Amino acid sequence: MKAIIQKDPDDPTSLTWSDSPTPVPGDNEVLVKVTAAGVNRADTLQAQGHYPPPPGVTDIIGLEVAGVIEDANGCVRPDGTPWASGDRVGALLSGGGYAEYVTVPAGQLLPVPAGFSLTDTASIVEVACTVWSNLMMTAHLHKGDLLLVHGGGGGVGLFAVQVAKALGARVAVTAGSTAKLDVCRSYGAELLINYRDEDFTSVIREAGGADVILDIIGAKYLDRNVSALASDGHLVIIGMQGGVRGELNIGRLLNRRGTISATGLRYRDTDDKARIVRATVDNVWPMLADGTVRHHVDRVIPVRDAAAAHAALLAGEITGKIVLSVSD
Amino acid sequence: MKAIIQKDPDDPTSLTWSDSPTPVPGDNEVLVKVTAAGVNRADTLQAQGHYPPPPGVTDIIGLEVAGVIEDANGCVRPDGTPWASGDRVGALLSGGGYAEYVTVPAGQLLPVPAGFSLTDTASIVEVACTVWSNLMMTAHLHKGDLLLVHGGGGGVGLFAVQVAKALGARVAVTAGSTAKLDVCRSYGAELLINYRDEDFTSVIREAGGADVILDIIGAKYLDRNVSALASDGHLVIIGMQGGVRGELNIGRLLNRRGTISATGLRYRDTDDKARIVRATVDNVWPMLADGTVRHHVDRVIPVRDAAAAHAALLAGEITGKIVLSVSD
Repeated sequence: MKAIIQKDPDDPTSLTWSDSPTPVPGDNEVLVKVTAAGVNRADTLQAQGHYPPPPGVTDIIGLEVAGVIEDANGCVRPDGTPWASGDRVGALLSGGGYAEYVTVPAGQLLPVPAGFSLTDTASIVEVACTVWSNLMMTAHLHKGDLLLVHGGGGGVGLFAVQVAKALGARVAVTAGSTAKLDVCRSYGAELLINYRDEDFTSVIREAGGADVILDIIGAKYLDRNVSALASDGHLVIIGMQGGVRGELNIGRLLNRRGTISATGLRYRDTDDKARIVRATVDNVWPMLADGTVRHHVDRVIPVRDAAAAHAALLAGEITGKIVLSVSD
Repeated sequence: MKAIIQKDPDDPTSLTWSDSPTPVPGDNEVLVKVTAAGVNRADTLQAQGHYPPPPGVTDIIGLEVAGVIEDANGCVRPDGTPWASGDRVGALLSGGGYAEYVTVPAGQLLPVPAGFSLTDTASIVEVACTVWSNLMMTAHLHKGDLLLVHGGGGGVGLFAVQVAKALGARVAVTAGSTAKLDVCRSYGAELLINYRDEDFTSVIREAGGADVILDIIGAKYLDRNVSALASDGHLVIIGMQGGVRGELNIGRLLNRRGTISATGLRYRDTDDKARIVRATVDNVWPMLADGTVRHHVDRVIPVRDAAAAHAALLAGEITGKIVLSVSD
């Protein structure tokens, strides 16, 4: 098969559409022929050498795809019915998505939401699982809560805004441009904060403090995020674009009885991923089917241009998601 | 009535048994005649000016008592039966315990455990509510988990060891003397770490990492605690004896999918305290009644010697609890 291979480990732009062995499914894995692959910021980190695949996982980049089952390998759905060759699916991956074929543990397969193309589906697998697992399974967002989403214009951000609104929460976002904030508003965000002009902490504190914060910045925002928490608030850190080490004022956290979690999907074991995928399908897929939550694909480009996709993401050009088309 | 009054706000040793107005119960509060009052490290912080009472609460020190209801004021138990004058009770307080009389919101009254004296009861109200709320309601300790308790020889520490053992967890403790570690062992701690001689992080990592850490140190241990966490581990900070500001390595936390909470009982609202008291009575009181969990009173001294009690606690002399006797 063909896949994106990084020719030079020291050059994150050396992503080349090349020959690669077609993977062979192991026990309880299916083989999927990939139609489209979602691009995530984690992919750019992996290309830079900062985010290695878990042990035993291919070093081909790519955490989500949609496509068609090529070999169901005897695998069954959660309800016990068999998967079959030709079934259209989405898949949450530990790696390997930028390729013509990928093997997927059966528990990480998702049905295609009603009305969604495979390209649409490839754009929402990772964000849907990320948003549901963090907002609900980790932070237990409640109706009436105030959620602050940093990077509201990103793939995770726009999805989080919509899911939180659907759950009855109020949503504040930060973003770096009026254009991105306008998109956030169109999806239901109420408090729009341009981080270039405003201090989010004072805006959020005036609004009563954030019950949940979904953060992709890390160290640079740590102290401000803790200050912005409401009593019993929960800061969930899923990215470290602003650095790894920050000062934590424990007294301030204790005054709020606050909680800080730092989480990710990739290094979870297959049981844990299957649990998250199932909860996401049970709770979020109906929101997609009835239009409550919409995907937002900024652009679709051929997989051979993966390096250009990474460059666009890193340049901050992308609102929502960028998807690689692999085959028709 | 008489109560301990701090004569000089700048002198934490100026605790004097003095005349003070007898408090008057408000709506849904009872008046308790105090037999014994537990001493907590938070009390020493309040005397030092670092831990003010919540708004509307007396500035008389004291977070827990046991005694006899003087005026039930129409209050009822959670099951709807009335409290009555003469009922023997324990009470979780926001302040006011070092006194002959104290008012208590009805939801913060606890029955006297079977076989317990009032002095025994005054020694376990705060620690029982602290341990149950943090280990179970915040950190969700599971059977088979490894719990690390810092300050294992303290009042909270010895209680946490026993409750965790009763729940089927393995327990590691740190303490600063062999004598305290021996007491911890006698209550069921398996991994005994003298922090003066050993690095707890390496001991805990060799044991597979801590699923839950109950910490009273704060900043000084922050980085080491995060290093000691197992995957999906939860660090619960309930004290800051080692300082308020520490460096948090978010990358290390994310590698473990770790969570940090900083919590306390005192500033919670009455509904929240009632919820915690009820869960504690439902779950921990049976462990006290059948001897699974035992109180450990280091010494009982007259309430007029409260300053001496604080000095002994701050000197590290106390294993378990110190209790003030107020009346017979």
